[in-house]
Order: sequence, then C-alpha cells, then structure tokens
Amino acid sequence: MSELFYGTGRNGTDDCVIGVDFGTLSARAVVVRVKDGNILGEAVAEYEHGVIRRLPGTDTELPPDWALQDPEDYLAALKCAIGGALRAAGLRREPAPVSDSCGPRIAALGFDFTACTMLPADETLTPLCKKAAFRHEPHAWVKLWKHRSAGAQARELTARAARRTDLWLTRYGGAASAEWYFPKVLETLENAPDVYAGTDRFLEAADWLTALLTGNEVNAPSFAGFKAGYTEESGYPAEELLTEIDRRMKGFIGTKLRGKVAKPASIIGYLTEKGAELTGLPAGTPLAVPVIDAHASMPALNLTKPGDAMLILGTSGCLIMHSDDAKNVPGTCGYMKDSVIPGLTTYEAGQPAVGDIFDWFARTSLPADYQLEAHARGIGRQELLTEKAAKLKPGESGLVALDWLGGNRSVLADASLRGMICGLSLSTKPEEQYRAWLEATAFGFRRILDQYEAYGVNVDNICVSGGIALKNPLLMQIYADISGKKLAVSGAAQSGALGSAIMAAAAVGCYPSVTVAAESMSAPYDRIYTPDPAGSEAYAPLYRKYCRLHDYFKDL
Amino acid sequence: MSELFYGTGRNGTDDCVIGVDFGTLSARAVVVRVKDGNILGEAVAEYEHGVIRRLPGTDTELPPDWALQDPEDYLAALKCAIGGALRAAGLRREPAPVSDSCGPRIAALGFDFTACTMLPADETLTPLCKKAAFRHEPHAWVKLWKHRSAGAQARELTARAARRTDLWLTRYGGAASAEWYFPKVLETLENAPDVYAGTDRFLEAADWLTALLTGNEVNAPSFAGFKAGYTEESGYPAEELLTEIDRRMKGFIGTKLRGKVAKPASIIGYLTEKGAELTGLPAGTPLAVPVIDAHASMPALNLTKPGDAMLILGTSGCLIMHSDDAKNVPGTCGYMKDSVIPGLTTYEAGQPAVGDIFDWFARTSLPADYQLEAHARGIGRQELLTEKAAKLKPGESGLVALDWLGGNRSVLADASLRGMICGLSLSTKPEEQYRAWLEATAFGFRRILDQYEAYGVNVDNICVSGGIALKNPLLMQIYADISGKKLAVSGAAQSGALGSAIMAAAAVGCYPSVTVAAESMSAPYDRIYTPDPAGSEAYAPLYRKYCRLHDYFKDL
Repeated sequence: MSELFYGTGRNGTDDCVIGVDFGTLSARAVVVRVKDGNILGEAVAEYEHGVIRRLPGTDTELPPDWALQDPEDYLAALKCAIGGALRAAGLRREPAPVSDSCGPRIAALGFDFTACTMLPADETLTPLCKKAAFRHEPHAWVKLWKHRSAGAQARELTARAARRTDLWLTRYGGAASAEWYFPKVLETLENAPDVYAGTDRFLEAADWLTALLTGNEVNAPSFAGFKAGYTEESGYPAEELLTEIDRRMKGFIGTKLRGKVAKPASIIGYLTEKGAELTGLPAGTPLAVPVIDAHASMPALNLTKPGDAMLILGTSGCLIMHSDDAKNVPGTCGYMKDSVIPGLTTYEAGQPAVGDIFDWFARTSLPADYQLEAHARGIGRQELLTEKAAKLKPGESGLVALDWLGGNRSVLADASLRGMICGLSLSTKPEEQYRAWLEATAFGFRRILDQYEAYGVNVDNICVSGGIALKNPLLMQIYADISGKKLAVSGAAQSGALGSAIMAAAAVGCYPSVTVAAESMSAPYDRIYTPDPAGSEAYAPLYRKYCRLHDYFKDL
Repeated sequence: MSELFYGTGRNGTDDCVIGVDFGTLSARAVVVRVKDGNILGEAVAEYEHGVIRRLPGTDTELPPDWALQDPEDYLAALKCAIGGALRAAGLRREPAPVSDSCGPRIAALGFDFTACTMLPADETLTPLCKKAAFRHEPHAWVKLWKHRSAGAQARELTARAARRTDLWLTRYGGAASAEWYFPKVLETLENAPDVYAGTDRFLEAADWLTALLTGNEVNAPSFAGFKAGYTEESGYPAEELLTEIDRRMKGFIGTKLRGKVAKPASIIGYLTEKGAELTGLPAGTPLAVPVIDAHASMPALNLTKPGDAMLILGTSGCLIMHSDDAKNVPGTCGYMKDSVIPGLTTYEAGQPAVGDIFDWFARTSLPADYQLEAHARGIGRQELLTEKAAKLKPGESGLVALDWLGGNRSVLADASLRGMICGLSLSTKPEEQYRAWLEATAFGFRRILDQYEAYGVNVDNICVSGGIALKNPLLMQIYADISGKKLAVSGAAQSGALGSAIMAAAAVGCYPSVTVAAESMSAPYDRIYTPDPAGSEAYAPLYRKYCRLHDYFKDL
C-alpha cells in the first residue's frame, strides 16, 4: 500500500471520515472512504484496565454488581485506535502547514459510546478519580453502563415518579433502571457525599470526551433521552421529583447537569489543539455529535428510515427502530425524537435474556450422553442441541415456554417475572426443550413487534446483528417464521464504528442526510431469512398460546 | 427347622393361612401363622413367559402398547410358589388320610391378582389361546392389566356414556381407561370376531382361577367394580350402551359375562380334586374371594377402617382408601361398596407419573458435571440430586411445577394434560428443579386428599408403600409437610400376599372381621413421618399457587 498524507485540505473524491466505537472493553476505529463506505483501515485498542473489579492500590474486590472504568483508558484507546486505523489505511499525518496536500482529507470524526457510562468531573473536566483526594473512592470513578448497584435508587425513583402527574416515566416502560443516569448520581450522593460535593458536573463519558476534544460542553441527545429522562417537550425530570428523593438534589439540573442538548447528525465543534493532541488528527477537524453505541450501528446497516429496525441478539435482545411519529407505546423502553436521525423518533425495547437462556440450558440441563456426543464429535453443546432441534417440526413437541428467565423488559417491564415451560411429558427430550427456548425468545420478539403495531408504529424492515444471528441459522429461521418478517443478518464487526463514520459524513455535509449517506456507505448484509409460510402457519396457534400464557403469568 | 405336616384337620394355635400375590411378572406365596401374622415361609415363582412381546411360534413383535400373558404361567407359578413357601416354612404334605395330624392346619387359601387382566375361555374354562385354532391369534391370549391398545374403544365408550343419562362413568372420573374390561372385550370383537364368537366367557384371570380351583363361577367384587363398571345399585353397564357401540354386544351380559358378584372376605368355595392338584393343597381347603393386588396390601398394613388410606408410590402413584359412606367424589378413579372390606366403600385415585418424573429428570436433565460427581462418589444420579435438594428450604427456589408429565388421573381425569414448571431464572440449578418435581407430586397428592375432604370423605390415617417411600426420606418429609398428614411407611415386600392371607383368615372365620384379623396379623411400619410445622407453613402459599396453576392449565 502506498503511503499517503492526510489533512484538512480541499474536498476530494478520496475524502475520508473516521468513526470510533467505544465498547465495553475496547475502542475500535475505522477510516472510511466517504464516496462508497469502503473501510480503508481499522484498528482496535483495548482499555488497559478493562472493567475494574478492584481499585488501583486497594485490596478490596468490588461487589459483583459494580462495574467501574478508568477514563484515561478511553483517551489512550482513542489515540491508539485512530493511529492504528490510519496506519492500516496507509495514511500518515502530512507535515503542517501544507495547503495543497495530495492526500485524502479527513472530513470529520464521529464516535459512539456505551451508555449510561458516566463520571464526576471538576470544573476543568478532570475526572474526580484522577484527583489524589478521591482516587480511593469508588464513586469517583467512571460508572460503566452495566454498573448495577443503584437498584434501591432506581426503585425509589420509580415509586416516586409513579405518584406524580408528570408521568415522564411512562414513556420508559414505567420503571427506572439501575443502569440509568439519575440512579447512578443518587447512589453517589447517598454513599459518597464528598464526591458529590466535589463534582462540578456528572457527565456521560461521551459528553466528557466531546468537551475535552472541542471545548464545547453540550449533551448528546440519545444519551440524554434514553438514559437521563430528557424529553424534547419538558427537558430533564422535574426538580421536585429529584428533591423529593433527596433535598440535596435541589439545583442539580442547571449546575451539575448542564449544557444544551445537541441536534443529532450535526457538528458539535472542531478539534482544539488539545483535541488534536488527544486524537492525532489536525486541529479544526469537525467532530460530530456522538450516539449511543447500539444506535450507531443502524446507519451502518442502512437502517435510517421510518419503519427500519435493528434487532441485536446476544446474551440479551434489543430492538431499536425509527419512526416518523412519536407515539407512546406502553411497555417499551423509551423513545426520543431527534436522538439519532434528524426528524425521526427512535424507539427501544428489549428482552433481558436471549442467548443467556440457551447458555443456561446447555450448561445446566444437558445430559451426560449428549455432552459425550458433542465431545466425541468435537462440536459445542449448543451446536449439538441445534442440530437435533433442527430435525423437529414447529409445534411437534407440544412445548411452549415463556422467555422470562431474566425478567421481562418489554412489554411488561417487570424484572421480577420468571420463566416457564409447559407441555412436558415423560418422553420430552433435551432438544425439544432447547427448541422451545429458542422459540420462546422469538415469541417474545414477536410480542414486542405486535405492541408497536397495536399502537400504530409499524416495523417494515429488520436487520439482525450479533454473534448468535450469524452462528445459528435455525434460530434465525424460527425468528422469521414466528415474526412473519423478512430478516436481514449482518455480521459486520465494525458496524458501530462505521455507523459513527456515516453520521460524521452526514453531519459535515458530505451527504445531504444520514439516509443518503447510509445508502452509499452502509455495509452489505450476510444473509436474508424469509418466513416459510408452513412454519408461520404452524407457529400461529403456538404464538396465541404464548400470548395467553404471557397475559396469565404477568399477574400470577 | 423341624419338619411338620400340614392338613385340613382340627383347629389349633399353629393354624396357618396361605396368601398368593399374582403380580406382573411373578407370583409370591406366603405361609402365615393365623394367631400373629408371623410369616413362616415365603417363595416367589416367575412366570415363564413374563410379558409376551412375541407370540410363541411367530416372528412378529407385538405393538408397543400390547401386553399379553400365558395363562398356564399362572398355574405353574401358583403350584411352585405355594410348594416353595411350604417348604420354606418347614412343612410338608401329610400322608392322607390322617385325621389327627400334629402339624398345623392350612385354614384357608387366598390370593390377589393384577386387574383388569382378562382372557377368553371356552365352556370348559380352557383359554382360547390354548386351542390350536386360536394360538396364533393375539386376542386369544391373556390381556394383561397394562395392555393398552384399546384406546379407541375406551374413547368411544367414554363418548357414548357421556351422552346417556345413566352416567355410570361419572363415578369413574368420567373417562373409561384402555386398561378396563369392556375396552379390551370390544377390541377383540372388532379385531378378532372369530375369537369373540369362540369365547364362552371373557373372564378376569382371578375369576378364571377361582373357577378352576373350586368349580364355582363367581365374580370377585373389586375386579367387577373397579374394572368392569359394576355397581351394587345397577349391576354392569347397560346393554343399550354396549350395543350402541357394537350391536354384536347384544346379550353379552348374562352370557359372555355371567356369574354372581361375590361378597368380599367370604369363602368362594373349596378346592376340588383338580384344585388340590393345581395347588398341592388338600382338596376341601377353603378359598377366599380374591382381591385386586393393590387392594390386598391394605389389610397387611392394618388399613381396614373408615379413613384408612394407602398411598402406593412407584413409577406412578395410587391412593386407595376405605370409607363408611359411599359418596360420589368427582374426579376420583372409582369407588365400590363391599369390594374389599364388608360394609365399607373403597375408593381409588391416582397420579399417572411419580417416580417416572424423577427418573425422567435424572435421565434427561442431569448435566455432565453432576453425573461425574455421582460416578466419582459411587452414588446414583437421584441420590446425588436428593442430597443437593435436601439442602434447599421449601420455596427457596421460587419454582412451582405441575406433575402432569403422564397426564392427570385425579382429580381432572384428563390423560392429555402435560407438565409445567414456572419460576425459572438464569440461576436455576438442577437440584432446584428436581426438588420442584418432588414437591409437584406431593402437591398432586394433597390435591386428591382435598378433593375427598371437600366431598365429605375424610382421610385420617395414611400408610405409604413402594420402593421410593423407603429410599427417599426427603420425598416423604415433603409429602408429610405438604399434606399436613402423619405418614407411616412400610417396606413389606410381601404385603400383597400377606394381605391375601389375612383376607382368607377372616373369610374362613379365624377372626370375626378383616379388621380384627389385620390388627393381629398385619406387618409393622418401618418409619413414621410427622409434618414439620415450619415446612407446612412454608408450603401453604406454594400449594395455593399449585392449585391456581392446576385450575388454569386444566382448561388451557
């Protein structure tokens, strides 16, 4: 590969954008050609401290529901991943100042981040955990999205919100999550008042990073809307709600949470000298408004129009979709207009356990003879179960299950619900039960789609991402048959970073809209699953049974 | 042991009775001292052909729901078992005629038999399968109790009976079983009309044997009542019901099914010369009215009074009890007055799968690491599961299950129902599920007790028999806690034969009643389980949940 220079010079057909995806354990950067989405270079940088289970310099293991990170890891990974991606693309920094470099221009930078991943910082944006006074205080560190020890605060927030008339919580499925912004802040206030007092702002890590890079303190809309209860109509939750819980929250909004909520797919600012130092990119490079990591994948999968949806299947399941109408759909996990695609409303709904159920079954219920067979044939437990389950016809076993082994997030929003399997007989085999659990998660997915459609929000076009979507064709065919929807599957590992790059390209005006940008730049699908009419017909009565059981067990 | 002679001479304190228990695969005989129930000798003789899976001289395997036997096996086992038991008791036949033998008198013979185990015979009582013209015809052989290929006939009988006003079926739980007498006869009529035409009488094997031994053709009441729909008030099912199904059944009752229904605990006749030849006992020995094998165990366990119940726990569960009132208890499997104990009504109810569920779970759902642990420690799978389950507290797992993996026999009488388990989470362990299945069968048992009590039939005194009652103390404690009843456990392997001997002692007048005989002659209990108040309290809400699920799933 020939060595090229890059800079901020004139437009050209080789213009690139850079997208960075901040995940749970690493950041991935891609250098993408604007005209066709071609990924010229890519690099991954792991966070040095990963998820912190023990604070540096201490001996105490954190409780199991804690998950902290070190904010400096983000900065190190950012620079390392961008540098690596540029090198992989065969690009190196042009000697400044050169006005007519022949290399491609880096038209813009965009990134996505996990959420709510938040930290307390002082007025200089220094994270409190980096100050000597606070470094042994766990609450001074970044609370990662899956830091879940603020359950009590989430429950109190839910209970108090339910007694009020503003009802902001109803659009979030009626229950605040321990993963959200305010439970995490309240947990710090109650358990580490010194940290609270010493904090100038409690920031989403994404917003902290944009402020560091550009000097502009603004809040990215998808984080504000989906994690901090912000709505376009009434802003953040009412102060009275927060002070009811703790009167020390008086004045919180406007001081410790401040800054304008930005518009999506817009330029938040330009890299300062410090920003240039932190990224290795030229000062003045435009930075796009960041989005939540999962949302960033959507433009990468060409899902930017009303009715477009992405189903992420991993240990859990998450359905994100765009609509041109902002309707309140009871029991979904939230919606926000102008959070990802300008003018559209983005919805979220989910299932707390999907792959986790299959894994639980294979771990706890696979008899020794099956285990031996899998071992002898050198295949995995689930591979064996899938192979045997694939030989069964829909409904053949008579089993129907409820997929609530981790509770129900949508449409019942009740974490205390539990799983059920019925139709068991003395001749029931493990593969029949395994298939029933596959089907149960598909029924749960269909139930969410039905909820949207019942409230007038249509889902037209679905793309599935996540490892098990690629690994388990039986599961995908069951999802297609049960939902009656054509399902595209994408295995693009870079979809988050590519999506952030596409958002940046649209934000900086390389394309007139995210939709047009995505049409040119998105990644191809790996496979498309079409519903088999015979399968759909066979599943219809089973789905009706699932719905009856769903409605019975929700109140049992 | 000194050698004694036996005969039919004068009464004496060493008088004995002989009881023979005809089981599924063998006959067991006991020689029992009348005054104290002491078992002096015991012998088991297996049936040469066991359960026939392929007719002699043919190559064709019978269908899996078929179960035939050879009637000559009963005769060979009878003589062999009685002879063996007498030898074991140190007794041998006195040289006839001797009027003042010093040996013990054999006061009477009694036996019990599986039911409905029936055969077609000609006018000389020769089984049709022993006639050259019929020996290759499967329907000419003994249809064992678990011959279940008459399902279609059972369903038709149920459907037609439901449309009639005599409603005899309601006292049998509303559904005829494929195991019963009339479905088995109808199956022969429809599939082997020549066998039907060539049959003089379709006999319970028990009645065939008493006729052979004594020359008296009478029908034992427990077989007639529990297997052939006989009621004291209206006799056998109405001819119109039978001819509606097949007009060739016209005249069946009175010809192919004839003979008086005997009184229980009475002498049916005396061994003829032929009977003496068949048993090795002196001609003139009194023979008591036989009882169904399970019922025979009750006097052996001193269960002869109103409110006495026996729970037989094996692969399935069966509850048999006596009452002084003949009430119709919906959903139980039948009741009959004067079938076992004179003056009392005997009820039956049951659960189609108990031990079978535990076995199913251990076979199909035990993960390899548990299997390895059991193997390394040299214990069985269920032993390991029981050990781990015993460490759990009632209700700790949150699981509740419905024990219908083999359908529900009582109180819903619906074989199509299936099992269910709810409360599953991603942390549910195998031993938690195993315990939930143990508890589910105990809830099913409690539900049956509640049904009796709701209809005014009280259960005061329960003895549990069967292998798993002895092997699994955890299960028995769960049964005691959930039912709130004190449970005696007996492991007497000879309870059927001993009970038949007790019935014979009462029939021949050695005691004034079966109850008095049982008080002197019954076997001791191995252990008594008392409900733990804390356990009972913890199970109360779980049983209420079981009942809610029971009532929901019965109609799903």
